[in-house]
Amino acid sequence: MNSIVIHDVGMRDGLQMESAIVPFEKKVEWIKLLIESGTDIIQVGSFVNPQKMPQMKDTDELFGYFNQKENKPKKTLLSGLVLNEKGYERGVKCGVDLFCLGVSASETHSMKNTGMTTGDGTARIINIAKEALSAGQRVQASVQSAFGCGFEGAISEEKVYGIVEKYIAAGIKNISLADTAGHANPQKVERMFGRIFEMDKTVEMACHFHNTYGMGIANCYAAMNAGVKYFETAFGGLGGCPFTKQPSGNVSTEDFVHMLQNMNLRNDIDLEKMIVLSKSAEEFLGKTLPGYVYKAGMMKK
Amino acid sequence: MNSIVIHDVGMRDGLQMESAIVPFEKKVEWIKLLIESGTDIIQVGSFVNPQKMPQMKDTDELFGYFNQKENKPKKTLLSGLVLNEKGYERGVKCGVDLFCLGVSASETHSMKNTGMTTGDGTARIINIAKEALSAGQRVQASVQSAFGCGFEGAISEEKVYGIVEKYIAAGIKNISLADTAGHANPQKVERMFGRIFEMDKTVEMACHFHNTYGMGIANCYAAMNAGVKYFETAFGGLGGCPFTKQPSGNVSTEDFVHMLQNMNLRNDIDLEKMIVLSKSAEEFLGKTLPGYVYKAGMMKK
Repeated sequence: MNSIVIHDVGMRDGLQMESAIVPFEKKVEWIKLLIESGTDIIQVGSFVNPQKMPQMKDTDELFGYFNQKENKPKKTLLSGLVLNEKGYERGVKCGVDLFCLGVSASETHSMKNTGMTTGDGTARIINIAKEALSAGQRVQASVQSAFGCGFEGAISEEKVYGIVEKYIAAGIKNISLADTAGHANPQKVERMFGRIFEMDKTVEMACHFHNTYGMGIANCYAAMNAGVKYFETAFGGLGGCPFTKQPSGNVSTEDFVHMLQNMNLRNDIDLEKMIVLSKSAEEFLGKTLPGYVYKAGMMKK
Repeated sequence: MNSIVIHDVGMRDGLQMESAIVPFEKKVEWIKLLIESGTDIIQVGSFVNPQKMPQMKDTDELFGYFNQKENKPKKTLLSGLVLNEKGYERGVKCGVDLFCLGVSASETHSMKNTGMTTGDGTARIINIAKEALSAGQRVQASVQSAFGCGFEGAISEEKVYGIVEKYIAAGIKNISLADTAGHANPQKVERMFGRIFEMDKTVEMACHFHNTYGMGIANCYAAMNAGVKYFETAFGGLGGCPFTKQPSGNVSTEDFVHMLQNMNLRNDIDLEKMIVLSKSAEEFLGKTLPGYVYKAGMMKK
């Protein structure tokens, strides 16, 4: 694995926010572009009730398709977001490589998102994670609204560390802090990840930033400085949690990779293919996406 | 002066890119909002040929207005961009507080912008700066395209340091690196400013980033880490040099100030007033501006 790992969440965090339903064939085309570009991890979808979120209705089928011998990516891992036990069972059945689970540190956001308190949500997530880990599955657990909440404002950092502590105690070694509401700033990012690495040096940290106030890419840079390895971004800068107060796009994967390549990192990724993908998404969705690089093209070196 | 100084260049770098000519009264209204918000330095306009750039035709009148006793800001400095001797004389006559001069490190950009080579432009700038300094004026000299050029691609860092060396030798103590083409990345920003502080610890550095590839605010954060004090940003994220290959907006002043305030810096600035200004500019120009915060509103704390 590379020192910086790209986890594209556009197929899930991006498409869940769109009113348009992207057909199965188009999703396959886009996931193939992500695989061919050399994306390390692709979040294919979430295991939610298709009645409630029809954008994610073909998640199981997509995993089925990409687990067929001829379609299986050689290097890329396929991740899926799981909200409950039923989702986990569906994920096991269709061959998820990496199970992503999470709880919101904001009580308001947690209730709106899952109908559960943060405490109950944490307990549930840890139960599923333990089951998955003991079955030999890869697991990532996240803390959503870790840097603040559109409804509640500031979220106690101690509360976030408390959840992380429980994750670590449960044996979860891959932990993500998600800035659902875009409230993170670079100083806070360095402080919070720094504190977690003090708790456990061996934990592998992931980050997930939204661009509500324009700080997403600065937060990614701060996270790099703090030693974070996994970066969850979305092609074109799509995305936003439908249950947050002011949903706003993710950091664009191609903007982040473009920055990395300008720092002489991850030159193995085919950025041109990522740009083709975002242009295709722009065309299909019929609107300009928030990303910069797919519009400006790559910088002349 | 504060540790971070906000120099809003929207009235110059922003409006020079707009096809609409903003009337004198509207400019006065906007500059007043910047003054009331507590902006440290406001770039009122440039002293160029009004035939060539009618957007800047009332620069002298604006300085005249704000130098009248009843309109003179108590704390805010008013800067003006000067391209040649004639511009400097106009600036002296109408009472510029801070003279901004510059040369492009890219030969192609320099020729397109001023019809001069980088070497000739540097010599000219230094002559004017020396005259201004010996007359007791405040002077800032910049290196444009300091991080790369849309036409030429990479620009030799040694070439940039060479220009800075000449500035320092001429007694210029306030020096700006401008990323005209948006090619900077945070690592490069830290490296280049770090190198200049090694040359002279007492120099006061300024930075000016464009958002072509979405790295502007990350570059500002990197510049803060490197010890840069002056930040040139534009309300609403307006701007772009008309003689660069791919003009693109500046970092938005209110986005930058919002980030600072979330780091508990510059709480003295009235961000609400800045948002009023960007909304007014959006309405007057009849288009969505690139800034995030004026659209999203301030984060709930």
